[in-house]
Amino acid sequence: MPKPVAYAVILAGGGGTRLWPSSRRARPKQLLTLGGRDSLLAATVRRVKPLFGLDRILVVTARDQEAAIREELPALPKRNILVEPEPRNTAGAIQIGAAFATLHSGPSSILAVLPADQYVADQRAYRASVRIALEHASNTIVTIGIRPSAPETGYGYIRLGKSVRGSRGRVREVAAFVEKPERKTAMRYLRSKQYVWNAGMFFLTADRMRLETEQKLPRLHRFFERLTALGDIDDLQATVDEHYHDVEAISVDYGIMERASGLLVVPSDFGWSDVGSWSAVGDLAKHFRNSDEHGNVLIGDVLVKEGAGNIVIADPGAPLVGVVGVRDLVVVATADALLVIPRDRAQDVRQIVDALKAAKRTELL
Amino acid sequence: MPKPVAYAVILAGGGGTRLWPSSRRARPKQLLTLGGRDSLLAATVRRVKPLFGLDRILVVTARDQEAAIREELPALPKRNILVEPEPRNTAGAIQIGAAFATLHSGPSSILAVLPADQYVADQRAYRASVRIALEHASNTIVTIGIRPSAPETGYGYIRLGKSVRGSRGRVREVAAFVEKPERKTAMRYLRSKQYVWNAGMFFLTADRMRLETEQKLPRLHRFFERLTALGDIDDLQATVDEHYHDVEAISVDYGIMERASGLLVVPSDFGWSDVGSWSAVGDLAKHFRNSDEHGNVLIGDVLVKEGAGNIVIADPGAPLVGVVGVRDLVVVATADALLVIPRDRAQDVRQIVDALKAAKRTELL
Repeated sequence: MPKPVAYAVILAGGGGTRLWPSSRRARPKQLLTLGGRDSLLAATVRRVKPLFGLDRILVVTARDQEAAIREELPALPKRNILVEPEPRNTAGAIQIGAAFATLHSGPSSILAVLPADQYVADQRAYRASVRIALEHASNTIVTIGIRPSAPETGYGYIRLGKSVRGSRGRVREVAAFVEKPERKTAMRYLRSKQYVWNAGMFFLTADRMRLETEQKLPRLHRFFERLTALGDIDDLQATVDEHYHDVEAISVDYGIMERASGLLVVPSDFGWSDVGSWSAVGDLAKHFRNSDEHGNVLIGDVLVKEGAGNIVIADPGAPLVGVVGVRDLVVVATADALLVIPRDRAQDVRQIVDALKAAKRTELL
Repeated sequence: MPKPVAYAVILAGGGGTRLWPSSRRARPKQLLTLGGRDSLLAATVRRVKPLFGLDRILVVTARDQEAAIREELPALPKRNILVEPEPRNTAGAIQIGAAFATLHSGPSSILAVLPADQYVADQRAYRASVRIALEHASNTIVTIGIRPSAPETGYGYIRLGKSVRGSRGRVREVAAFVEKPERKTAMRYLRSKQYVWNAGMFFLTADRMRLETEQKLPRLHRFFERLTALGDIDDLQATVDEHYHDVEAISVDYGIMERASGLLVVPSDFGWSDVGSWSAVGDLAKHFRNSDEHGNVLIGDVLVKEGAGNIVIADPGAPLVGVVGVRDLVVVATADALLVIPRDRAQDVRQIVDALKAAKRTELL
């Protein structure tokens, strides 16, 4: 039996505000470098290129991010960048990639669904986990779970089931997806070693995706059938544009994965972060070697005097940032907006974002 | 005897860095509005105009500030703006104004030497004090002293002597100029009620200035004699430009006033500030009505959530400033630089300024 063809379907349409002011609708998190060499998106593509090859890396993005994404990935074949005409959450975006793979390589194609905006420290360990997931993906749905390093309350968890025979514990059954826990529960999960973080990476065949969608999201399934019935793949984007508004807006986790059965998980430890807050960006700095001896993270044109534990970032085009005598503060400057917030309250950036929304200052969002 | 002609000699050549990043060499403190209606300089001119008239208000500034100063004071006669070709401290700058007054109105002209970058809350009380000072200035050197409201360690003090007969305590002899005190000493000064702050305002005749200068600063005296020997007042600036480099660089306080005798002082209370730090700017906010109910001072395009006691300023052209969850912080943004510093360490802004100097980043100074 020939080895099935595998596609990476990189989800790059998000527009989160948790890294405001650096991240914006038109400059989303996946395009930020955050002190690294590449943007998170470019790093994701570079990371998976040895596994899939550029021809089989698909990037699904939003209309208003398309130009920036294309500019960021000049080496990717133009048609591999697919566009959601409007936001329909991850289930819809994946379906576009699934249709592309099906049209090109048939229903046995394997899809590796990967977020575009995560950080990975150890590329080799990451690829080893992905290879294991791909090996099992012809038969079922596989996910990668991150072994927790802290009692995080911001992630969903996966409870580990039995070890798959012959895998020596490297592949486990998914016993259950569990919701973001309270702190105390997260502590218990951490100590038990029987839970991993759900990192939102899924591996399955295009045909399995079709079956799951047919059962669970009928409008999305009709959309998929319409796409895969096309005689000419060049009509794909136009057909997406015409019919996408019809589909269910739901995440692939809620809409499909958490309701599917027989899933496997590859517990992994490759230095992972979803870069979900400025505080998390500070935690990454050890990998990027841009901390000083007082635990200040310094990115861009910044000066910190007599301060400790601060995250101080000046994006390109931002004013010079001078900070004196403060501790554990996040200070982020861009050309048109500036944030000052305690590191342990980084998630409250939304208070500023909400105020800007209320004031209809969309140019800053 | 006809009433002597009085000139205001406004010293507007300073380039302090204590209000960095808003104040710069080319945008000095006297040109900042700091939440008020006018710049400190324009407010100074407006304040003294009823006393002197625009024709007799002289502004002495530095070469690299001249253009900005002229733009700020379009109503002032052009020749009333006099330029120091290089910095020579206040004694030199005043001498240029003294020569102008002598050439125009003779040696009995009274000079009111006034800094351009101070804040005054009560304009009428201020003018009342100046009128009293002017009344005595034909006979001696008079200064205005500010009754202290706090044990300030950043000001020089004047010890009050005997009340001048008939003044009912409104005019006192100067017993002594005393240096910036330690905190404990400042507390004693405050309680004693026998000390006032030296606000750097002096009132004396051009002839008295000539005599004091002749005795104490011979090179500056020769410069003054050269200026007052001119046949044509239109040659004044050119002669200044040619010979100014020769004069002693010394403040009028150290060079002349503290070594002169028979001085009088008008103890006053008109809501005065030398606006010597960002912390002082915060203290002024009560006059400008730009504080919120949590004691945050808000100037410009700023948003503060769940914070108290902060001074948050966005200059025109600066990024929007969003601040969440911090206390007693100074956050100042301009188009090209940004400062974050605790309010009670505001004077340590010099650490940033010194680092920029060391890095030769003169565009930010």
